[in-house]
Amino acid sequence: MQDIIRESTADEIDSAVAKAAAAGPAWAASDAAARSALLRKLAEGLEAGREQLVALANEETVLGPVRLNGELDRTAFQLRAFADAVDAGDPFQAIEDAAVPGAPPAGRPHLLRVNVPLGPVAMFSASNFPFAFSVLGGDTASALAAGCPVVVKAHPAHPRLSRAVYALALESVQACGAPDGVIGMVEGATKEVGIRLVRHPAIEAVAFTGSFAGGAALQKEVQGRDKPIPFYGELGSINPIVALPAALREKGPELAKTLAASIALGCGQFCTSPGVLIVLDSDATDSFVRLLAEEMDAQAPHAMLSPTIRTAFDSGVARLVSHAAARRLTRSEQDPGRNPVPNLVEVDIAAFIAHPELRHEIFGPSCLVMKARTVAEAQQALQAVGGSLTATVWGAESGDADARAIVGAAMSMAGRVLFSGVPTGVAVTRAQHHGGPWPASTAPQTTSVGLMAMQRFLRPVALQDAPAWLVGDYR
Amino acid sequence: MQDIIRESTADEIDSAVAKAAAAGPAWAASDAAARSALLRKLAEGLEAGREQLVALANEETVLGPVRLNGELDRTAFQLRAFADAVDAGDPFQAIEDAAVPGAPPAGRPHLLRVNVPLGPVAMFSASNFPFAFSVLGGDTASALAAGCPVVVKAHPAHPRLSRAVYALALESVQACGAPDGVIGMVEGATKEVGIRLVRHPAIEAVAFTGSFAGGAALQKEVQGRDKPIPFYGELGSINPIVALPAALREKGPELAKTLAASIALGCGQFCTSPGVLIVLDSDATDSFVRLLAEEMDAQAPHAMLSPTIRTAFDSGVARLVSHAAARRLTRSEQDPGRNPVPNLVEVDIAAFIAHPELRHEIFGPSCLVMKARTVAEAQQALQAVGGSLTATVWGAESGDADARAIVGAAMSMAGRVLFSGVPTGVAVTRAQHHGGPWPASTAPQTTSVGLMAMQRFLRPVALQDAPAWLVGDYR
Repeated sequence: MQDIIRESTADEIDSAVAKAAAAGPAWAASDAAARSALLRKLAEGLEAGREQLVALANEETVLGPVRLNGELDRTAFQLRAFADAVDAGDPFQAIEDAAVPGAPPAGRPHLLRVNVPLGPVAMFSASNFPFAFSVLGGDTASALAAGCPVVVKAHPAHPRLSRAVYALALESVQACGAPDGVIGMVEGATKEVGIRLVRHPAIEAVAFTGSFAGGAALQKEVQGRDKPIPFYGELGSINPIVALPAALREKGPELAKTLAASIALGCGQFCTSPGVLIVLDSDATDSFVRLLAEEMDAQAPHAMLSPTIRTAFDSGVARLVSHAAARRLTRSEQDPGRNPVPNLVEVDIAAFIAHPELRHEIFGPSCLVMKARTVAEAQQALQAVGGSLTATVWGAESGDADARAIVGAAMSMAGRVLFSGVPTGVAVTRAQHHGGPWPASTAPQTTSVGLMAMQRFLRPVALQDAPAWLVGDYR
Repeated sequence: MQDIIRESTADEIDSAVAKAAAAGPAWAASDAAARSALLRKLAEGLEAGREQLVALANEETVLGPVRLNGELDRTAFQLRAFADAVDAGDPFQAIEDAAVPGAPPAGRPHLLRVNVPLGPVAMFSASNFPFAFSVLGGDTASALAAGCPVVVKAHPAHPRLSRAVYALALESVQACGAPDGVIGMVEGATKEVGIRLVRHPAIEAVAFTGSFAGGAALQKEVQGRDKPIPFYGELGSINPIVALPAALREKGPELAKTLAASIALGCGQFCTSPGVLIVLDSDATDSFVRLLAEEMDAQAPHAMLSPTIRTAFDSGVARLVSHAAARRLTRSEQDPGRNPVPNLVEVDIAAFIAHPELRHEIFGPSCLVMKARTVAEAQQALQAVGGSLTATVWGAESGDADARAIVGAAMSMAGRVLFSGVPTGVAVTRAQHHGGPWPASTAPQTTSVGLMAMQRFLRPVALQDAPAWLVGDYR
């Protein structure tokens, strides 16, 4: 399918950004009704086109109709969630401080702190979420909700789907009477298209979901601009799970099954896929780890998203398995002629802490397991993992000193800390946070999932002694 | 006084950061009472030491006792404002979403979004605010309130004052039983000290107030770290004022007096000092500009903060006055043997837009004035100014089309838009925003003044299905 990828020309990229910039003021001035109408129309469009879109997506990604239908549902839900948030006034929230007579510092003028949209956003689609983090995914929905036009960089792993979704986006824009150019799209498999896009002077922010290498390179381009702009990169992570003895004793078999399924889910192609398991050593450890390996051997993942991703997975696994500190626990070897098989490797915790190469993300169904003799060792391992989108702590219900120590370590390195279940699956809600310290996110104070994602595209302005007509606009 | 500046050694810098890092967990875990007690104690310490501190500050900065007493008041007020915000629960605010049974996307787990402190903050003092943006200034107060230790880089323009304030800070830390190392300090006049500090792996954020050149260089160092961290740079701006005809007709003489005083205030050494005046041409224009020049000639600013700043001011003024497009309106020339005199220069608006060098900030009492024949020309001039901490619009009360157009242009390029008075003077309140698009700020979504400044040093963590003991910590 490579033959149908095309590269947007420099003129096409410039023209898409120019149209977005032209749409900017009108979209920034649009009211809640206009924004939520477009967001809802886009959700309806996805649902109306479901059959064709899911079929196209499946041809291009082999993720399967169950997952793809679910992802389309999630994407429509997400668009409507932002519509609801806009209707509830999220982007128009203001903070008002009454004037206080007298000399400073106690005396002060009237101040009204409002938010203004940043302007055109460059949005980079992800290979692994053809709907939810692509043309009409979370970044686009949150930028539109904030009042910003979007120029999407389609992902070359699903070009035909991107075009089909973009076509319905254009129809929706027209049907709603939204400004022409409020959603634009460029395409390309080479890095030049993305670089030209983020270096365009009219682009005011960049949202990126993808690999560490790709995101870090793009961030350098953004930092090299004459006028630097915010770069919101979500670069994935290895998502450690810490199992305390209480959890394994109470429900070891169930957890082994759940974890094996999470590692294999979507062929491990999630940014929240669990990549490290730290087990506090107890009499339940050995049987749990054996069971986990068996459950993983019983999984049958589908094919990967692209040959490039597959090759990277195979070489990552080969490097890991051949590492002097590593012992493979799952039975099967990878066979390039068949789908990947889940890979579980045990390492000593000291080796994990000493060797950074053991901590590199392997995108796909692969996990490391290690035994911690003490809580302190488990804490050190979490610290060695560093910035991560998620950390999961099983067995912390008691709140004893061990649980508190591990939870503290997890909160210091992750953007989301889970206490049951597995990190795959990210709810779209107000309290969600999908970020985390570098390198999980380039902007750890922001989230790319959930309603707070809108805040990435707004900037405060304090209005001092504003006239009544202007204050009225925000009340 | 140069002889008393000393350079912290590499070991001293590393040791200050190591002590801050060691204090980190305890300070992050401290409750509101502990944090606000320290902040209030620091305010009391400043007030108790007022006589000695103001005398020292005046020796080192020549800003005069009236201004310095006022600045000390403001700094104590600021510390207490953050104490109040901590007591009100600001850093402990959480967002909670109840679990919803059922399959995703509508079904979801319980999520509690809390904030955690980033960790040790490197804080760079400013030359022009020896109290309010130095050792115990706004950055330190907001970082401590957020639960982060601070390592201050003292400004070499006031080393003895910095040491005196730091000594009282240490006493307060001890008196409150706060963790040793929660406030550290390093010194130096060369850039090496600052570079070593921001490159230290245990530093988690940097707050900087100062020049564009210094800030941009430091930001590059931060971006070059193995683990990039947030860099909050407030780099100053030229703070345009737009005067609509209504304002000049109604109170031209009063505005000329106020503006001349604002330009000369503190010898123009404020990041909010007005540097550009755009007058919508009317029958009131010429007399207003003439009056402004007269009022500026009547000002007698005090000396500048340092010989370096004075030299930069003189050469900036010389470059501006000799520019082909510029006509000087004030009478006096700068005399290096005397205090600076206010400088008002008229340029054509087309020249201002065409020549970037006319838009460079001149730190000191200098202002450009230009006449706009149309609202569109005034908008273009604001756009040419680019990112600015403030923009002021006089005469927008009617809310007519002209007023709305100018206010829209001002809001698109400034962090604070004023509708009366002058931009010097920044109230410390919740609704304040002291930031603005690049290059005014390196992080335009954040503020370095006001209670929201605390948010720079916090990072969200979503707790999923958290056990009761942990949820209880945030309720």
